Amino acid sequence: MRDIVNSTICAISTPVGQGGIAVIRVSGAEAIAVCDTIFQPASEGKTIGKQIPYTINHGQIVKDNVVLDEVLVSVFRQPYSFTGEDIVEISCHGSTYIQQEILKFLIEKGCRLAHPGEFTQRAFLNGKMDLSQAEAVADVIASSAAASHRLAMNQMRGGFSKELQHLRSQLLHFVSLIELELDFGEEDIEFADRSQLIQLADNIQVIIARLVHSFGVGNVLKNGVPVVIVGETNAGKSTLLNLLLNEDKAIVSEIHGTTRDAIEDVINIQGITFRFIDTAGIRDTSDEVEKMGINKTFRKIDQASIIIWMIDTTHFNKEIEYIADKIVPKTRHKKLLIVFNKIDKISQEEQQILDEEFLPDVPAERIYLSAKYKKNTEKLEKALLKAANLPELNTDDVIVTNLRHYEALTKALESVERVKNGLKTNLSGDFIAQDIRECMHYLGEITGEITTDEVLENIFGKFCIGK
Amino acid sequence: MRDIVNSTICAISTPVGQGGIAVIRVSGAEAIAVCDTIFQPASEGKTIGKQIPYTINHGQIVKDNVVLDEVLVSVFRQPYSFTGEDIVEISCHGSTYIQQEILKFLIEKGCRLAHPGEFTQRAFLNGKMDLSQAEAVADVIASSAAASHRLAMNQMRGGFSKELQHLRSQLLHFVSLIELELDFGEEDIEFADRSQLIQLADNIQVIIARLVHSFGVGNVLKNGVPVVIVGETNAGKSTLLNLLLNEDKAIVSEIHGTTRDAIEDVINIQGITFRFIDTAGIRDTSDEVEKMGINKTFRKIDQASIIIWMIDTTHFNKEIEYIADKIVPKTRHKKLLIVFNKIDKISQEEQQILDEEFLPDVPAERIYLSAKYKKNTEKLEKALLKAANLPELNTDDVIVTNLRHYEALTKALESVERVKNGLKTNLSGDFIAQDIRECMHYLGEITGEITTDEVLENIFGKFCIGK
Repeated sequence: MRDIVNSTICAISTPVGQGGIAVIRVSGAEAIAVCDTIFQPASEGKTIGKQIPYTINHGQIVKDNVVLDEVLVSVFRQPYSFTGEDIVEISCHGSTYIQQEILKFLIEKGCRLAHPGEFTQRAFLNGKMDLSQAEAVADVIASSAAASHRLAMNQMRGGFSKELQHLRSQLLHFVSLIELELDFGEEDIEFADRSQLIQLADNIQVIIARLVHSFGVGNVLKNGVPVVIVGETNAGKSTLLNLLLNEDKAIVSEIHGTTRDAIEDVINIQGITFRFIDTAGIRDTSDEVEKMGINKTFRKIDQASIIIWMIDTTHFNKEIEYIADKIVPKTRHKKLLIVFNKIDKISQEEQQILDEEFLPDVPAERIYLSAKYKKNTEKLEKALLKAANLPELNTDDVIVTNLRHYEALTKALESVERVKNGLKTNLSGDFIAQDIRECMHYLGEITGEITTDEVLENIFGKFCIGK
Repeated sequence: MRDIVNSTICAISTPVGQGGIAVIRVSGAEAIAVCDTIFQPASEGKTIGKQIPYTINHGQIVKDNVVLDEVLVSVFRQPYSFTGEDIVEISCHGSTYIQQEILKFLIEKGCRLAHPGEFTQRAFLNGKMDLSQAEAVADVIASSAAASHRLAMNQMRGGFSKELQHLRSQLLHFVSLIELELDFGEEDIEFADRSQLIQLADNIQVIIARLVHSFGVGNVLKNGVPVVIVGETNAGKSTLLNLLLNEDKAIVSEIHGTTRDAIEDVINIQGITFRFIDTAGIRDTSDEVEKMGINKTFRKIDQASIIIWMIDTTHFNKEIEYIADKIVPKTRHKKLLIVFNKIDKISQEEQQILDEEFLPDVPAERIYLSAKYKKNTEKLEKALLKAANLPELNTDDVIVTNLRHYEALTKALESVERVKNGLKTNLSGDFIAQDIRECMHYLGEITGEITTDEVLENIFGKFCIGK
């Protein structure tokens, strides 16, 4: 287990690299004392120890009579700080040399380099936030689009925690009624009307079920809508991807079969993240490596919720049928967008014929564009948003985005279903109380009331250092 | 010209990217008012406008009723701030999304994105620091080794400025004496003894000359000691470079002639920066591209102050003489280190024979090592430090590191030499005063008392944004 409680930790909290300023954060019982050994205040005698919390102190970091940097020092005193411990934040010039030297100096003076996520872990251990909020801190930092950011921010600010607290207090009331009956078991008193209890269990079940189901949306919003682009070789898939990405991540070339490895990247369209999976072009080939790429393409289709099928309008051939046979059966639970590329090279009439005669029975949105000349790509963006089919969310909607929470909620849901069945079949109160306690246990795992070192290690190990 | 004075500017001041926290800096007359439009304090009514300077305020950035982030806001009021203007620093979560959104929000509310270096430029324009100090801010941020950092820090803290001020006041005294004589010119009074004036000019000349000459060391400390590694193909040059760099920057392969492009990188040895120039191996070749690389190698030797000649001890051949003919004549004003590589493959006796018989007349340090097995590389490091031949510097030594300063000082030196000659040849006071004023002008260019928009643009345009 990590040495959590006793040491004073330090880390560079700002992004890695060179910039105007950088912030080094120090947290723990010795934070103020250690920082005072390396800090010379600009106003004589104005040490960090004497500094009023939530104020800024100007001075220098001096090592061996050499000024390492001129800095601003902020101080926060326990328990009114992020970690709940004394915190000193040293704002220095953003030279990588200065950042490293100050950090080394702090470590010389007795600090330990913080583990990833250790500041947030301490905030959790000191009761400043529950576990789901602590987890959301990492999500807030990682979120790169409006929708995922909003969910993470809501969770960090305790929206999800409140919902869970409410559920727990309902369950606690519930179990206390049952257990009261058990205490008076021999007198055969019913403190709670069975039909009212069933109603209560119903309510709880509905709420937990809603949370469980919200994971479908939450996961997509957090990780992005998976989209796969398929088509024959040279249909312009890589060009389209580059266009949407505005970058040259995929190698584009005129040689058929260039893209062998599945390249994955994300783009934001109106605040929604789409995770694009570029794939090898599909064709009958004898090249073993290319065959493997094509097989991968078909596997990738299973992971996607939207399939973009790109067709080179200038180049219809036998591959079209081959692909149709492979793709169409897979689209039952997915959205299919058929993209006719290179429309700059065909006439209006040809386009109309395509519209009417190309796989008329396949339910798919059809988009005509030119990836090369960036024509109609906004139509594709609109079609993607429509195909993602995401609900409008309110600011306060609680959406589960975390697989760990989803799994705990799924188990809680099973428990509450057993409670309901127990009530209906007049099961002994002992068993019902047991199931209610189990449901509470799973909810407690989410908020961290019940937890193990392994779980904590797992959660905070994925954070960045300095948070 | 840049719109400097009237607008309120904002920028992300921390390094680019994702991290625990990021800082957005806002400076200008409207900084506090603008930030208050996007900030909701945690304690009701505790706006930034009401915040005591040098304190920290906790709250949220709220846009369209959605919480963008929970932040800490520091406030500094003019003139007691870095820029001399009102400054608000918003410390937010280091998600790139949040950083961008807050910045966009500030711009919506009337701020302008800061130009590179504009915060420092404002500090200069508002008299918070002189131009040489402002320039040192960029050097402090860019410095990556102890020596260059110390010089930049000393300059930023005004060490150089003080020296220049002292010179200027001496010159002012000087010119006032001369001009007083001119006023009383017809009475033929000498207010100053000519020999004393010559003494004064001498003193000033010595100081300026010392500064001019310090640029040799200053430039090397700032930009690194240029070292070139040459040798026949496959002698292990790239391996050695990688070893010293601790990275795999150069491509190492068994195929002769791998390294065609000169790769340049820097390493720090005991606080001194060495700038390594890897080069193509030297051999007689018919490959045109390789020939170009070899020619480049010979040109690179001219730029270096240290030449490392690597020799494969297992593989002496005709190339050795070819290289000796090419390199030895170039080493008159340079240090030559002959590195015998692959010593793991030869015996002690063979090594001794090498020592005695290999080019005994060439003055060079000889190092025997194995780049592959990392044997004796510390000997090479020591030899490099010795070859760099840098003086011991005291903390307060003023060293010129900036080409612009060097050029101005060179001109100032010429002026003061003219003054001295004028005094010796009894030149008219008018001309002497003119030359003294010219000397003061050049010193004023360094501190920014005399400056042009073009010069400022040039200086601050090279800064990073956010500083």
